[in-house]
Amino acid sequence: MRLTILGCYSATPRTLNNTTSQVLEINNHMFLIDCGEGTQVQLRKHKIKFNRIKHIFISHLHGDHFFGLVGLISTFRLLTREADLHIYGPKGIKEAITLQLKLSDSWTNYKLCFHELTSKKSELIFHDDKVEVYTIPLDHRIYTNGYLFKEKEGERKLNIEAAHEANIDVAYYRKLKQGYDVENEDGVLIDNKAVTFPSETPKSYAFCSDTKYKEDIIPLIKNVNVLYHESTFLEKHAHYAEKTKHATAKQAANIARQAEVKTLILGHYSTRYDDLSLFKNEASEVFNNVKLAKDGKVFNF
Amino acid sequence: MRLTILGCYSATPRTLNNTTSQVLEINNHMFLIDCGEGTQVQLRKHKIKFNRIKHIFISHLHGDHFFGLVGLISTFRLLTREADLHIYGPKGIKEAITLQLKLSDSWTNYKLCFHELTSKKSELIFHDDKVEVYTIPLDHRIYTNGYLFKEKEGERKLNIEAAHEANIDVAYYRKLKQGYDVENEDGVLIDNKAVTFPSETPKSYAFCSDTKYKEDIIPLIKNVNVLYHESTFLEKHAHYAEKTKHATAKQAANIARQAEVKTLILGHYSTRYDDLSLFKNEASEVFNNVKLAKDGKVFNF
Repeated sequence: MRLTILGCYSATPRTLNNTTSQVLEINNHMFLIDCGEGTQVQLRKHKIKFNRIKHIFISHLHGDHFFGLVGLISTFRLLTREADLHIYGPKGIKEAITLQLKLSDSWTNYKLCFHELTSKKSELIFHDDKVEVYTIPLDHRIYTNGYLFKEKEGERKLNIEAAHEANIDVAYYRKLKQGYDVENEDGVLIDNKAVTFPSETPKSYAFCSDTKYKEDIIPLIKNVNVLYHESTFLEKHAHYAEKTKHATAKQAANIARQAEVKTLILGHYSTRYDDLSLFKNEASEVFNNVKLAKDGKVFNF
Repeated sequence: MRLTILGCYSATPRTLNNTTSQVLEINNHMFLIDCGEGTQVQLRKHKIKFNRIKHIFISHLHGDHFFGLVGLISTFRLLTREADLHIYGPKGIKEAITLQLKLSDSWTNYKLCFHELTSKKSELIFHDDKVEVYTIPLDHRIYTNGYLFKEKEGERKLNIEAAHEANIDVAYYRKLKQGYDVENEDGVLIDNKAVTFPSETPKSYAFCSDTKYKEDIIPLIKNVNVLYHESTFLEKHAHYAEKTKHATAKQAANIARQAEVKTLILGHYSTRYDDLSLFKNEASEVFNNVKLAKDGKVFNF
């Protein structure tokens, strides 16, 4: 899995700070998460291939997470995209986009598939044979979802030498990978574990922005490899967080600790702070593996 | 008058090329013309004071002229703007903006005044005691207007020494500036021209983008000081211009020559061209005072 931060600041884009957008590469998918104004330029800057993006997940319809979407859709059209584009986001997203396409008389020449969300409970919204995506209902000023990206349990790995030595016909290798015991050419039942290795542990990524401190999400994100949790404010401005339904670095760390995640990435910083190390210091008092999002930063995990 | 080019490329914003937006400073006004995605970042970069912008003129609702508007409006809100904001643009602009503000539950705390345009004839859409703004109906794929910004004829300048010598009471100076002949203290009628200088010649700026070659605009922009005319293509791609209802550099120059403008600024370049000097060369064969728009360039006139 690879996460590229295109923007991780709140409120408004600035010369050097971009609003929320990130790209998650997971099992050949390239998922775009949120799309603040200027995201298409950030994608170009970081050499993300536009046509690899087939799924876009929008957390909520505040501008700093959403105002770049219509431009990206239009640019895909100008680049004569043909592949379907799936967009997941709150109800209303379809109307906002299609109205603007209508006014500009610029319908896409590719299929635009909206998946509008309204549920306040976690739902499975995408899956294929390798990946599942669930919503994480958050608590912000307007209807908002985080997203949980999970690899499915993979196939076991064949121990080719052992399988060969056990005299198993290659026709059964597929079954072995699927975890079955099989008979060898002498009619003896071979224990699967004797001729296979365990599958790789599936990885998972939870994106939680924007939200107030919300312990309800803990069961949903339990044990994820990486949690991106918004930390718009430092604890000294907890009253602003309370008022605007955002979280502090300490609150994000508290969620990470209780959910027993492996890594916490902080982001969605208010532009009032010049020194982001304060966020890391504050969160590190509560949780021991804290990283800071930064525009352009790539996390491999 | 001062014109700052924030972006002058067509189609899509890129790492180094911004889509259409410019700021015209004229008689203490700061008019924003078009607002492609990323305009608010360009405004910051070029240190344009946000709160001096009170009027925004949108030519048409294609994304490269319009997708930055909702973000700018939202940023004004976050900066706790109080002054009214007047937006001039095609019918539909109000619905597109207000729908997005509604979905994000982020109504402005300042007054947003939409002036929706539908006429296919030139109209006076703004005036105060010093400036007038007219639409310039253009011919593009969707309803589009250019804008003509004109200083009004100013007051005559008093020749104080001559007025004093002519024995005119100071109470009449105001009348003199307004062009009237007045009686002096001896009851003699004094010819206005003998005691005043002419007013400065009013300046004018015409913004014409996007449009196909359209001679109908010539009477409207006759003799303007500066004409910005789109030149999306070079003449060798005139067939693209024809098809997409854009103009070539040569066509822009033809308009400039016939309208007898003083200066022609070219812009709205297709990103297919690396060498912009080709535009200048082509236009200069027809018209002798051609300048190239460039992101960040400032024209004083």
